[in-house]
Amino acid sequence: MAEEIVLLDFWPSPFGMRVRIALLLKGITYEYKDEDLWEKSTLLLKMNPVHKKIPVLIHNGKPISKSLIIVQYIDEVWKEKSHLLPSDPYQRAKAMFWANFIYSLGRKVWRTKGEEQEAAKKEFTECLKLLEGELGDKPYFGGENIGFVDVALVPFYCWFYAYETCGNFSIEAECPTLISWAKRGMEKESVSKSLPDQHKVYDYVLQLKKRYGILSR
Amino acid sequence: MAEEIVLLDFWPSPFGMRVRIALLLKGITYEYKDEDLWEKSTLLLKMNPVHKKIPVLIHNGKPISKSLIIVQYIDEVWKEKSHLLPSDPYQRAKAMFWANFIYSLGRKVWRTKGEEQEAAKKEFTECLKLLEGELGDKPYFGGENIGFVDVALVPFYCWFYAYETCGNFSIEAECPTLISWAKRGMEKESVSKSLPDQHKVYDYVLQLKKRYGILSR
Repeated sequence: MAEEIVLLDFWPSPFGMRVRIALLLKGITYEYKDEDLWEKSTLLLKMNPVHKKIPVLIHNGKPISKSLIIVQYIDEVWKEKSHLLPSDPYQRAKAMFWANFIYSLGRKVWRTKGEEQEAAKKEFTECLKLLEGELGDKPYFGGENIGFVDVALVPFYCWFYAYETCGNFSIEAECPTLISWAKRGMEKESVSKSLPDQHKVYDYVLQLKKRYGILSR
Repeated sequence: MAEEIVLLDFWPSPFGMRVRIALLLKGITYEYKDEDLWEKSTLLLKMNPVHKKIPVLIHNGKPISKSLIIVQYIDEVWKEKSHLLPSDPYQRAKAMFWANFIYSLGRKVWRTKGEEQEAAKKEFTECLKLLEGELGDKPYFGGENIGFVDVALVPFYCWFYAYETCGNFSIEAECPTLISWAKRGMEKESVSKSLPDQHKVYDYVLQLKKRYGILSR
């Protein structure tokens, strides 16, 4: 049977990008459908009736949602190529821990201002430093190759320019090791092809700020 | 090598209970350490420096945190007995989806009052109804036996009395199928031995309400 794989996604979503990277890493051909999150498609509402959120992977008609669950699913179904999760249970648990840790990274940096924003920047930088500690001197969180944590984290890199511009700070000055890691990731086609341009993301953030009535600094 | 297994936990925590149930289901002997969450032990701070939260399972000196990650770890390390996660990738993804869905179930019911509480009760009941839909007419979410979703969900049952009393409503009247499922679960020793008495939980909730300055209705 020919595999039918559809991804319901939204281009600036780091969660969607996780799935795009995993699919590319595994060399899986799929149909990409970009959703309008302010006017969700009947297909999305049918495929993820509980959360009504992207990303949703539809594999031969069966929907899977929640980005990390989808990435794990992809890793388990297409297991011949590019192992993302380690096989050792302890290493798997560690990878899952860090991948889950990243949830909503940096969101507060562009959504706040003034003192609240300063606190958000501090919290964000501390999170990145913890991640740097976990990375150590390995090229990737997964070791010599991109793994589960790398796939979970690297999509946020294309939002960094927006965070930096909205927050008026340099992430590289604070966390050079993490930036080197991200640039290393971007050399992989699976990553660079899955992430939109950082300026396009910034324009989208400006639109969001307008929509939510958040004034620029 | 003799296995050394320590669980850092806090008795009313539904997240801790998940781990207790999994350990009992697998027949694993362990040392239980109850934490004072307002004066955390040096061991907890050392073993979970990122979140500083229970539960933490320490297996031969190596810490694993986050309840669902721990349960999955237990399932993978002790795989001879009581399989919790299905082996089929799609069924696994579904189990993980529902287990993650349950996060912080009912918390708002006892933390709020007035209109906000009415909304919280409505949201809570809707969540339970979705779970009832997923359960269907199976005895357990895991099918004929307790599985990952059952382990994730059943601990909240001992909080239901507190929710009902604080919210002045009957969960059984709204969701009889789910209550039958919970009672079925409580017949299992692994569950009944892991859950504290519902009145003890209610007393704890009253203490919390006092601490947070939430007046009773």
